[in-house]
Amino acid sequence: MSSPDHEVLELPGFVLESGAVLDPARLAYRTYGELNADRTNAVLFPTWFAGDHHANEWLIGPGRALDPREYFVIVPNLFGNGVSSSPSNTPPPHDAAAFPGVTVRDNVRAQHLLVTGTFGVERLALVLGCSMGALQTYQWAVSHPDMVARALPYCGAPATSPHNQVFIEGLRAALTADAAFDGGRYGTPPAAGLRAFSRVYAGWGFSQAFYWEETWRQLGFASLEDFLTGFWEANFAGYDANDLLAMLWTWQHADVATTPGMDGDVKRALGSITARTLALPAEKDLYFPPEDEVRAARYIRGGEVRVIPGIWGHLTGGGANPVDAAFIDAAVRDLLSE
Amino acid sequence: MSSPDHEVLELPGFVLESGAVLDPARLAYRTYGELNADRTNAVLFPTWFAGDHHANEWLIGPGRALDPREYFVIVPNLFGNGVSSSPSNTPPPHDAAAFPGVTVRDNVRAQHLLVTGTFGVERLALVLGCSMGALQTYQWAVSHPDMVARALPYCGAPATSPHNQVFIEGLRAALTADAAFDGGRYGTPPAAGLRAFSRVYAGWGFSQAFYWEETWRQLGFASLEDFLTGFWEANFAGYDANDLLAMLWTWQHADVATTPGMDGDVKRALGSITARTLALPAEKDLYFPPEDEVRAARYIRGGEVRVIPGIWGHLTGGGANPVDAAFIDAAVRDLLSE
Repeated sequence: MSSPDHEVLELPGFVLESGAVLDPARLAYRTYGELNADRTNAVLFPTWFAGDHHANEWLIGPGRALDPREYFVIVPNLFGNGVSSSPSNTPPPHDAAAFPGVTVRDNVRAQHLLVTGTFGVERLALVLGCSMGALQTYQWAVSHPDMVARALPYCGAPATSPHNQVFIEGLRAALTADAAFDGGRYGTPPAAGLRAFSRVYAGWGFSQAFYWEETWRQLGFASLEDFLTGFWEANFAGYDANDLLAMLWTWQHADVATTPGMDGDVKRALGSITARTLALPAEKDLYFPPEDEVRAARYIRGGEVRVIPGIWGHLTGGGANPVDAAFIDAAVRDLLSE
Repeated sequence: MSSPDHEVLELPGFVLESGAVLDPARLAYRTYGELNADRTNAVLFPTWFAGDHHANEWLIGPGRALDPREYFVIVPNLFGNGVSSSPSNTPPPHDAAAFPGVTVRDNVRAQHLLVTGTFGVERLALVLGCSMGALQTYQWAVSHPDMVARALPYCGAPATSPHNQVFIEGLRAALTADAAFDGGRYGTPPAAGLRAFSRVYAGWGFSQAFYWEETWRQLGFASLEDFLTGFWEANFAGYDANDLLAMLWTWQHADVATTPGMDGDVKRALGSITARTLALPAEKDLYFPPEDEVRAARYIRGGEVRVIPGIWGHLTGGGANPVDAAFIDAAVRDLLSE
């Protein structure tokens, strides 16, 4: 199946870790560039929370680190994002609020079928991703050490920390406090809940200093209230509430330590990584703080951390700030050259 | 007027900065110790958000920094806190959602009438306070430089920063997303909104590391979910929603720069302070980060900052952690000895 914008891999009878079955699961993806003859130039670049393949395109293009003249870049869409299988696009019995919990490992397994089955790729030159994309990157490196030559997680971590989970609990509680949500059986979207969700998110997405310096002006907004409505509320207003909750569930349950065979031991899971790993936390990220990746790197052989300096907080990884984008682009080049 | 627990100063025809009139405004307070003959041992210790005079008592007592055998400690309750005039206890036309916006300066003016009128105190040995109590402390030092010998704001700032305002917007949006709130005209409390408010607050109240280290176990909780419900939800569940919103309004509008005569210039406002000022920000406070007080101290003559180390975040100032409590107690002693 295809559309002008992306392709879809249908996975019949796809059994989730929970035991629930998506029949089929639909994994949407887009590729950039051409796979070379010996299939050694493939890069996998999973998406973040509430983004789709377009959100990664700032790092892909001629003259950029992921140059499609050199690399074959595969961008798979996260389950729940409204493009891959999601509450909003799945028929009964798994529609809407009945959509099952999908783990990061479920995403990785579907992506593995895409990479190996559709493209016949046995080894990825690089897996990289931002935020929930970083959660997937670490999981790839743990689940398929033989397949991942390099890993570059940015603004993310190998597990969702307890504080990060509390942040997610706040988002969920805000969204579902709106009675219009109705346990996920809404007809009309829960507008007040989505607005609350957006305003809660606003405080976490950028750093304290970003707001002090009124750096939102660089994004074209004239006032703080204008930024809260025109950027944050607009960003989530069109999103399906059940889709957001499905992605939050995936996020909240992310932990490489729960990979089968790792016995819940994060050190063991990270110690099994063989990829050359370069992690890029953002200096003032409020929910994936640098400490997360610094701690993780201790247990990864040769694991390197480069903190992205600056005040853009978690959205450092979004590509909207040219200085941060250049930092990330340079790091990807460095890792690919090793 | 009095009760077994606290006294109340009635202020007839109390005109707020907004022009609205509380007739009377009721300022609840409690005192500890005795005023000495020359009235030089008075300490003013305003309360924080969603707390009352009891919340300050950990720092008051024989052998503590604020020893009632030596000092006369006056603890005035913040307007909106449900003890002083608040939406929940004010008759029409200013009841419930019709309660007017009360500024920090309105609080300070009422407290000034208490200090000078009721007690005949012309100079305070110390004004101190945590969080919204710190906002009031800075305002006292700016509004009445002749009356404040020493100021010790902790876990607070002279103005609510833009990021802090975004945090407040998230709290407000979460609380009011519940249709049961009904524009403040609820009969039954908006339980889902209060729950969301609590869960959003949970991520901000303590640091990321506090949750990593499961430091909530020190507070007697057995699991993270237990902590979210037993500590956070329980803390706000009994609060009146309009009272919470009234205090948030006060908090959000706090800024010493808007003091009459300061022309919106925070440097000028801080430069007018003559109190010996010692600010204690908490190292990992997520909404009053140390940068706020460090920046402020630059403009206060002799302004000193001591960062409270540790992982308790904003609630470092709450007195529940013995190490932090000892740090604050020692700083208060040091300042009082100067």
